[in-house]
Amino acid sequence: MKTGFLGHFGGKVDAIDHHISEIEELSKEIEEERTRVLKDPKSIMPAAFVSFKTRWGAAVCAQTQQSRNPTLWLTEWAPEPRDVYWQNLAIPYMSLKVRRLIIGVAFLLLTFFFIIPIASVQALASIEGIEKRAPFLKSVIEIKFIKSVIQGFLPGIVLKLFLIFLPTILMIMSKFEGFISLSSLERRSATRNYIFLVINVFLGSILTGAAFEQLNSFIKQSANEIPKTIGVAVPMKATFFITYIMVDGWAGIAGEVLMLKPLIFYHLKNFLLVKTEKDREEAMDPGSLGFHTGEPRIQLYFLLGLVYATVTPVLLPFIVIFFAFAYLVFRHQIINVYNHEYESGAAFWPDVHGRIITGLVISQLALMGLLSTKEAAQSTPFLIALPVLTIWFHRFCNGRHKSAFVKYPLQEAMMKDTLERARDPNFNLKACLHSAYVHPIFKGDDDDEDDLSVEMETESVLVPTKRQSQRNTPVPSKISGGYSPSLPEAVKNGEL
Amino acid sequence: MKTGFLGHFGGKVDAIDHHISEIEELSKEIEEERTRVLKDPKSIMPAAFVSFKTRWGAAVCAQTQQSRNPTLWLTEWAPEPRDVYWQNLAIPYMSLKVRRLIIGVAFLLLTFFFIIPIASVQALASIEGIEKRAPFLKSVIEIKFIKSVIQGFLPGIVLKLFLIFLPTILMIMSKFEGFISLSSLERRSATRNYIFLVINVFLGSILTGAAFEQLNSFIKQSANEIPKTIGVAVPMKATFFITYIMVDGWAGIAGEVLMLKPLIFYHLKNFLLVKTEKDREEAMDPGSLGFHTGEPRIQLYFLLGLVYATVTPVLLPFIVIFFAFAYLVFRHQIINVYNHEYESGAAFWPDVHGRIITGLVISQLALMGLLSTKEAAQSTPFLIALPVLTIWFHRFCNGRHKSAFVKYPLQEAMMKDTLERARDPNFNLKACLHSAYVHPIFKGDDDDEDDLSVEMETESVLVPTKRQSQRNTPVPSKISGGYSPSLPEAVKNGEL
Repeated sequence: MKTGFLGHFGGKVDAIDHHISEIEELSKEIEEERTRVLKDPKSIMPAAFVSFKTRWGAAVCAQTQQSRNPTLWLTEWAPEPRDVYWQNLAIPYMSLKVRRLIIGVAFLLLTFFFIIPIASVQALASIEGIEKRAPFLKSVIEIKFIKSVIQGFLPGIVLKLFLIFLPTILMIMSKFEGFISLSSLERRSATRNYIFLVINVFLGSILTGAAFEQLNSFIKQSANEIPKTIGVAVPMKATFFITYIMVDGWAGIAGEVLMLKPLIFYHLKNFLLVKTEKDREEAMDPGSLGFHTGEPRIQLYFLLGLVYATVTPVLLPFIVIFFAFAYLVFRHQIINVYNHEYESGAAFWPDVHGRIITGLVISQLALMGLLSTKEAAQSTPFLIALPVLTIWFHRFCNGRHKSAFVKYPLQEAMMKDTLERARDPNFNLKACLHSAYVHPIFKGDDDDEDDLSVEMETESVLVPTKRQSQRNTPVPSKISGGYSPSLPEAVKNGEL
Repeated sequence: MKTGFLGHFGGKVDAIDHHISEIEELSKEIEEERTRVLKDPKSIMPAAFVSFKTRWGAAVCAQTQQSRNPTLWLTEWAPEPRDVYWQNLAIPYMSLKVRRLIIGVAFLLLTFFFIIPIASVQALASIEGIEKRAPFLKSVIEIKFIKSVIQGFLPGIVLKLFLIFLPTILMIMSKFEGFISLSSLERRSATRNYIFLVINVFLGSILTGAAFEQLNSFIKQSANEIPKTIGVAVPMKATFFITYIMVDGWAGIAGEVLMLKPLIFYHLKNFLLVKTEKDREEAMDPGSLGFHTGEPRIQLYFLLGLVYATVTPVLLPFIVIFFAFAYLVFRHQIINVYNHEYESGAAFWPDVHGRIITGLVISQLALMGLLSTKEAAQSTPFLIALPVLTIWFHRFCNGRHKSAFVKYPLQEAMMKDTLERARDPNFNLKACLHSAYVHPIFKGDDDDEDDLSVEMETESVLVPTKRQSQRNTPVPSKISGGYSPSLPEAVKNGEL
């Protein structure tokens, strides 16, 4: 092997010796950089993970306010180690609030006006546009086949491309907003995605027009006309939505179980990059279930089902078939295929519940709008009790059950503490905690961890899976396992 | 004195002997009833005041969730003893939520449709109405003076009577809703009162029409027409509001300092009922400052000032004079006249802040509506940044400062605990707490307490007052005094 540029020039050396020495050098550099960062006072972040000797202490600290200035010491439950989004840990309070405002405004603009840049790109991508900007392509374009492709597909592809990148855009927005865990990032993105789908797919299809045109007409319309407009349009669009459910829903589920993208990527990588067994393992990575893309779509179908249940029940069988397929497919995918990226303790459920309530209210309003144009116009106002009661039910549920997803009751904490102290009084807590929350770059070799992970996994498997790769499934959380006597917690020092 | 009916019949006895024996009998009965209630298992309420040995313990318990079922053990800060509203202590969670829904709906109906029963009563109170229902009064009514009184004053008086009783109605609604402290009752009533004033006085005067007619026209109007309608009407009503400020505002302040009602009541009582010095003291009771009636009115003037500041600045001097007078008068009244009913730790302030923000947003919307009809119509949409930023500021303030009004930081609690233990290690806590939270009917003679209260009062006076009666001003709160090592707390067992 030669030492020069791309291995083609310079003096000849033995390849194995050369690489070993290079690895040693790099390891030394990494070591130096690590110690430098650890000693550098500029690298100290205003955020820390605090471990407690008892679960009770952690629960108390997470639920109470520490200092008189409520933004000086912010305490909250730490997400489990693999759920931490390290980049956002140290954003000060004021900056967080400003970011939230900026992103809120940006999302509104995106939802209502995304069609404007798309349309301008589409205009550019038309025959005339291309001929104007790039006259040298004229001869190519004039070929009949290419011409029809450009005219038929290009505008649709531009829109489709945007919709494919939308979840990524929304995820970047959420990251900019400063959430500190992957699960909360996905939750926020899912909410945004759902709003986008409801406005641009559901309302957009029913009223046929770009979102900002609808916004304009809604502003100019009176408040009691809006449900009427929607309500009257709903039954007329039933056939369209049946097609939509079959094309997007059923086909989407089928595509989900086929896993085409990972399959193609695997074969491409296998062909081009894979050299060792480990490379092959990595190439087989199926990724993780994208909650922030999948959940809003399923919710959209739920909304369709609710809206059409009373108006055009013929749509319901299609929805039911969709949900039956989705149940089978996602159950299989979650158990056997996808990596389990984090454990958030059902923190997603309150959002799902909220969206079901939203769907109910939308369906009730549409029904009211429809009925008020029919013979039942006189009795329609009494239907207003429905949304009022639905929203009240939502608030009741929030008060009654939400704390189960947010807070850790002291009674439980104390019980577990006592039980554990009785069962295992000599438990070495410090050793267990020492490496719990370590930034990925400070972690040792990956292999050790993988071994440990496999070991842990086989211990805690409840459903027998066909999964082989454990790459993105590190040690299961201590919260779920319940074998650690302490729950760590994030303390954030957000001085203004 | 005779022992029979009204002291006129029966055998003669010595008055003093007779009354002494009667008092003894009654005292015995009271004693028996008290012990009976204390022993009766049916009198046990699912709510309790819990005292802690340290402030830290109380702060932890109040801010955390205790059991897995979040409605099984509800813990919150206890209001100070004189602030407790005993009747509402033991309402279960489910019932609370249902009550809140009922009252919410009832308040909406009251706000928008209160004019309907009033109008029907007014119709009844007209000349024709009275002649129809009570023909025997015909001859009296036909007298010219009485006729003009009925025609001129009666309809106005009916409305005025309703408006006088409105705060009482709202207070009854709040009591039904189940708040456990007087301060929270007043806060909720004040909010309702403010909403009523904004809709029926501010919007009602600007748009001239009953609230439900406005509601009807708003529903039929498009969303961007509403600010226009209001914005255009605002400058036209400036003279009306100047009159309103002088008649209702200035005169109200003058009436406040005159304290006519207590004066008349005092002289009536003095003339009819007063027999001893104690009776006279009681007759001189000036009552307490009605936050729930006074604060919303002041906020209404603040709203007027904000709305007219940019449109018709000539209104501002009247507002400024009103606020200057109000400052002088209320400062005097609060320091020297009114009883200090409770101490809530500035819990009213977040509400006040919220209403100022509401006023700002209303004024900005009205301004936008007005400008969009003038030459600046093109640039008006940019003004939408104003309400967005205002609401964001409100949310920022809530996140930054609200916990100071709601939570008790652990750091502070610990500091006070430590300080006190060092200063007074032999403090007898139990004796101090024994009589802290006792239901009024279990309290001993009032006189002892009054003596204590006077003693305490003279100790803690900071501003020299001209007040003499201490009747409704019992021992100042232990929270504010800071000499008790423990903060009691309400634990409510609200099983569903």
